[in-house]
Amino acid sequence: MGLKEIGFDGKNFAVMAGPCAIESKEQLLETAKAVKNAGAKVLRSSAYKPRTTPNAFQGLGEKGMRILGEVKEETGMIVETEVLDPRHIESIGKIVDIFRVGARNMQNFELLKELAKQEKPVILKNGLSATLGEFLGAGEYLSQHGNESIMMCYRGIRTFETATRFALDIGMVQAIKEKTVYPVIVDSSHSAGKASLVPSISKAALAAGADGLMVEVHPNPEKALSDSKQQLTFLEFESLMHEMKAIASSVGRKI
Amino acid sequence: MGLKEIGFDGKNFAVMAGPCAIESKEQLLETAKAVKNAGAKVLRSSAYKPRTTPNAFQGLGEKGMRILGEVKEETGMIVETEVLDPRHIESIGKIVDIFRVGARNMQNFELLKELAKQEKPVILKNGLSATLGEFLGAGEYLSQHGNESIMMCYRGIRTFETATRFALDIGMVQAIKEKTVYPVIVDSSHSAGKASLVPSISKAALAAGADGLMVEVHPNPEKALSDSKQQLTFLEFESLMHEMKAIASSVGRKI
Amino acid sequence: MGLKEIGFDGKNFAVMAGPCAIESKEQLLETAKAVKNAGAKVLRSSAYKPRTTPNAFQGLGEKGMRILGEVKEETGMIVETEVLDPRHIESIGKIVDIFRVGARNMQNFELLKELAKQEKPVILKNGLSATLGEFLGAGEYLSQHGNESIMMCYRGIRTFETATRFALDIGMVQAIKEKTVYPVIVDSSHSAGKASLVPSISKAALAAGADGLMVEVHPNPEKALSDSKQQLTFLEFESLMHEMKAIASSVGRKI
Amino acid sequence: MGLKEIGFDGKNFAVMAGPCAIESKEQLLETAKAVKNAGAKVLRSSAYKPRTTPNAFQGLGEKGMRILGEVKEETGMIVETEVLDPRHIESIGKIVDIFRVGARNMQNFELLKELAKQEKPVILKNGLSATLGEFLGAGEYLSQHGNESIMMCYRGIRTFETATRFALDIGMVQAIKEKTVYPVIVDSSHSAGKASLVPSISKAALAAGADGLMVEVHPNPEKALSDSKQQLTFLEFESLMHEMKAIASSVGRKI
Repeated sequence: MGLKEIGFDGKNFAVMAGPCAIESKEQLLETAKAVKNAGAKVLRSSAYKPRTTPNAFQGLGEKGMRILGEVKEETGMIVETEVLDPRHIESIGKIVDIFRVGARNMQNFELLKELAKQEKPVILKNGLSATLGEFLGAGEYLSQHGNESIMMCYRGIRTFETATRFALDIGMVQAIKEKTVYPVIVDSSHSAGKASLVPSISKAALAAGADGLMVEVHPNPEKALSDSKQQLTFLEFESLMHEMKAIASSVGRKI
Repeated sequence: MGLKEIGFDGKNFAVMAGPCAIESKEQLLETAKAVKNAGAKVLRSSAYKPRTTPNAFQGLGEKGMRILGEVKEETGMIVETEVLDPRHIESIGKIVDIFRVGARNMQNFELLKELAKQEKPVILKNGLSATLGEFLGAGEYLSQHGNESIMMCYRGIRTFETATRFALDIGMVQAIKEKTVYPVIVDSSHSAGKASLVPSISKAALAAGADGLMVEVHPNPEKALSDSKQQLTFLEFESLMHEMKAIASSVGRKI
Repeated sequence: MGLKEIGFDGKNFAVMAGPCAIESKEQLLETAKAVKNAGAKVLRSSAYKPRTTPNAFQGLGEKGMRILGEVKEETGMIVETEVLDPRHIESIGKIVDIFRVGARNMQNFELLKELAKQEKPVILKNGLSATLGEFLGAGEYLSQHGNESIMMCYRGIRTFETATRFALDIGMVQAIKEKTVYPVIVDSSHSAGKASLVPSISKAALAAGADGLMVEVHPNPEKALSDSKQQLTFLEFESLMHEMKAIASSVGRKI
Repeated sequence: MGLKEIGFDGKNFAVMAGPCAIESKEQLLETAKAVKNAGAKVLRSSAYKPRTTPNAFQGLGEKGMRILGEVKEETGMIVETEVLDPRHIESIGKIVDIFRVGARNMQNFELLKELAKQEKPVILKNGLSATLGEFLGAGEYLSQHGNESIMMCYRGIRTFETATRFALDIGMVQAIKEKTVYPVIVDSSHSAGKASLVPSISKAALAAGADGLMVEVHPNPEKALSDSKQQLTFLEFESLMHEMKAIASSVGRKI
């Protein structure tokens, strides 16, 4: 699968939506159907979770991957997931269409080197305190053997401000585009940290010229096992998609 | 003059444009006419410049204020300018419609206390490393005697990233709006640091829900005495206004 | 009074101690005697306080300055205080030996320009997010008319970390010394944010090569009207001075 | 080997010195002898290097590990090295006494989980933008199966300042000690970024109460294949050790 089939043709604004973590078959399937109906093309979700302490929910792991495989088959969606460990690449690769490298692993170069040998597209998120140069350098690890199916996902940086979870320095969308040919997508959920900021950031990303959006959606955010404050309900997501479609047409994009 | 007359009625997206510094009558008049034609309602410009070293251009001072007075009369535009010193308030107030407090003076509380006694509206920019709480606290200094004609201007914060001059944490637009009744405007020029990023940031601000925009425009940016890399040409500004008008209509705003 | 008389002769480690704010004659006098006994040469204290909101204690102002004048006379100490407003310089200058420019005013250039015309020494604190270049630039505003009695006070910078109040990037002591001939002093109280960290930071500053220290001491920190968590008790200050004297002799300094 | 044998008994100040990267047998052996003579107990060096781009020197890998094994045998020093990949743990563990987790891998939790199963001590460096809570959380991953031989290595954080490479927020030494029983060591080389700042930072770390120091030393820093600006010469290191011994005795420590 190439970048075009995922929805990056220069005109399309590709929306990747789904729960932070895979919690159950029901939760993932229900969410997949909802985001697909609303216009998302790619289902985002994680089975392996990098958490601050070992006591926090670590994801369903292999069981989560089996669920993801089933949901992929039942919905026909393109699916992606985060990969944390070079030793997981083979098994994860049997199920997903796209690998995701999270912010905490942007400079896990041994992981990047292994992913560079795969033939699947990779979403690369910027590190919490990575400079543009370091972000591009990490991209070079992925492309060194010729795989150019890379998506640069800007998810904001850590600063002193606590009103937002991470600073989504919106000027970076254009700054990254000036330095690379890869599509630039924005993760609006992690920078927001709370659901009420997500629509505003998402619409800004579209108007700023991003090629896509990654956003967390959950059937019941309050009961989510991780990121409970920042996930959108189905209704909030539908409403956001509706608003973004209007903006998209005003800037020559399609959703 | 109240916030409504300036263009903040909840529907309008108020554009404030003009040169970083007042350099000559010709430069300011020419720019004022160009930005007015393109749809800007407020002329921005500075006669007193806070510069990193005493050897840098410090602005035309009183002479600049006289020029601003003449240009105001000839164009009929609403004019604003930065005030650095409590001792300048009286003379500046005779000419401008709006006072501006720059990022470096957000916590110059003696200046804020004097401005609080004036009856003119004030644009308050966030400090380079001010938290939301500190930004709101500075606003309280301005409103303590009842003047509620305050515009909160978010101009980004200082971070490690150098690809942008300051990080325009776009989630702050909504975060500020959730905490205050004042209009929120975005300064896209100072966060960008280079002209090529300004349109992207400006459009993002509009889509994010900001009530207005402050942007630097100069007849010949390369020859500007300050901020030469980030000022837009007349043509670039017109083009941006054209794009923003399309987005505005898609989000229920007018420009 | 020149830098040598204050205690900056290249060998001496000059300790400036006293309460955050002047609260009463008794409080200031008691503290002055205690810190003098323990070896401090300069009494630090503030009558004008830059506070985040207008509802916080703003300092005793002119009344505080009268108290400071009396305590100076009764103890014979060298006294300094923060100046916030160009209009206060004349009256404050009648009492203090040293002006202090706080972090929030490092780029209040109109204030710096007025201080440059005075003949008294000035302590210049770095801004919360000032680069070394900007800190040196602010120093140039003070020295532009030939007054070289400047002390560069490094008080840390704002970062994402909340375990300390500000990051006292200790490498900056040497970095500043490599770029200027002025003495470098460290403010350990504001970076610490809590008293338990102050001794560690203070000793580090001495070992790093700083020429002096500014530290907050209060008769009863818990009841202080500002900075209550970070001020040292008399006993804690004496103990710190004792420890610092031992280190000083090991690095060829005197206290 | 336990923490005491490495030199962490509460009184000792343990110095870990050596080149950034293993470049050749001669280079490592020569450096090992020099730092041992000067009083270092642990030899630091890296065979696997996490570099910003794939074109930069990646370290000698397995060949480097063989060299490290030989130098360990010939000098009798305690040796440590950085581990980047869970798949390298077994082979590296056959040679080194201590594993090191670098800043870029502080939240590579899959690596931490594997190291937690080993019986060797681990040096854990804080991430470039890790909070204290996240640093402690990473430590919990290492200790979750009962291995308490952990050294918390504070190497500074990323900020806007470029005069230092990373901000060595010296208050963190005490702040970390208040939250954990593990020894706290400071990496002075990476925060400095240039050799002239290293002695100042190193001495500050000792005076601040750190239990040890990690510092880079190279026979010919200018020709080093990585970190060429910040490594000390043998002479500079000897001089630093001499100065630190004097300070150590004044604060009740031994080197």
